[in-house]
Amino acid sequence: MSTNRFRYNTATTLDGYLADVHNSLDWLFVQTFDEAGPMSMNAFLADIGAIVMGSTTYRWLLEHEISADSPWPYTQPCFVFTHRDLEPVADTVHIVAGTPADLRERIVAAAGDRDIWVVGGGDLAAQFAAADMLDEVTVSIAPVTLGAGAPLFPRPFDLELTEIARNGDFACLRYRVVGPRKPADSAGETA
Amino acid sequence: MSTNRFRYNTATTLDGYLADVHNSLDWLFVQTFDEAGPMSMNAFLADIGAIVMGSTTYRWLLEHEISADSPWPYTQPCFVFTHRDLEPVADTVHIVAGTPADLRERIVAAAGDRDIWVVGGGDLAAQFAAADMLDEVTVSIAPVTLGAGAPLFPRPFDLELTEIARNGDFACLRYRVVGPRKPADSAGETA
Repeated sequence: MSTNRFRYNTATTLDGYLADVHNSLDWLFVQTFDEAGPMSMNAFLADIGAIVMGSTTYRWLLEHEISADSPWPYTQPCFVFTHRDLEPVADTVHIVAGTPADLRERIVAAAGDRDIWVVGGGDLAAQFAAADMLDEVTVSIAPVTLGAGAPLFPRPFDLELTEIARNGDFACLRYRVVGPRKPADSAGETA
Repeated sequence: MSTNRFRYNTATTLDGYLADVHNSLDWLFVQTFDEAGPMSMNAFLADIGAIVMGSTTYRWLLEHEISADSPWPYTQPCFVFTHRDLEPVADTVHIVAGTPADLRERIVAAAGDRDIWVVGGGDLAAQFAAADMLDEVTVSIAPVTLGAGAPLFPRPFDLELTEIARNGDFACLRYRVVGPRKPADSAGETA
């Protein structure tokens, strides 16, 4: 049995959005974050052997972060889940169709003895969770509300808080994924 | 000039919902919270001279918390914002129509030298913020996602993180309200 952990790690707003309605992260890049501080991305990435993301996240990266001067930033194999016909921007990028379960074996093999970073978006992370392929949710909450946008995690799940820290402007929270929430109707009791 | 602070203080899910689509708080009451621990409601309530809430919150309280054995729990004057024809359940409950600004003087006078608790819902809290009548947002984040429900704060605002603590199952975050977010279009720059 593999002991790779699937770990969703993302920035979010206080009201649970990953991006605004125009798919912008303007609200994010004005915040301070200390990479030498608690729950830093560099420390997280050192544990990561493979990366998964959705097509919106991938195309956001291509549009905003990747250029002739600024190559694809990850050395780990990266699986982009999409039904679109996208071009891999590097040898380590794999455009894949299918469900998380379909790809599980291949992702785990690529990760070796390290963990898998579920980058997002929220719908892909929730699909991984629904396939029992999500162990951890870590959020860096920016001090912002947007009122609308791309949702953090559009399914009902129970979590367990395992770590809490402030880093710069962010509240950083780490959770263990417990499992899907049971509908209240089937709980059999009301308070 | 009054120095009363308007303070929105609520429990929420990690994905920014105050209640599920059936207006249920089942997900909330299964969590642990230590009233002797940090950011407790008793300590908060000691600073509160007046309370404001929306009609959904008020009717939720009447339905779930108030009975012959369990009277209205607050001694402070409470203003219920609604255009419905609701019955006050106690002498200290005032059913009011109008905007937050319309009622400001009356609420502040009722609060005396203490603060005002904006209980919710999210839309009322955001209306107070839009009227420049919100100083603080405090959230106790339950380790739950719902994917849908009543939103925490349905307007774009900038905040500043002032306190962070764990209490039981909750991550408790306190923010100063900075002001409405300026649209990215008018910021004049892209990263």
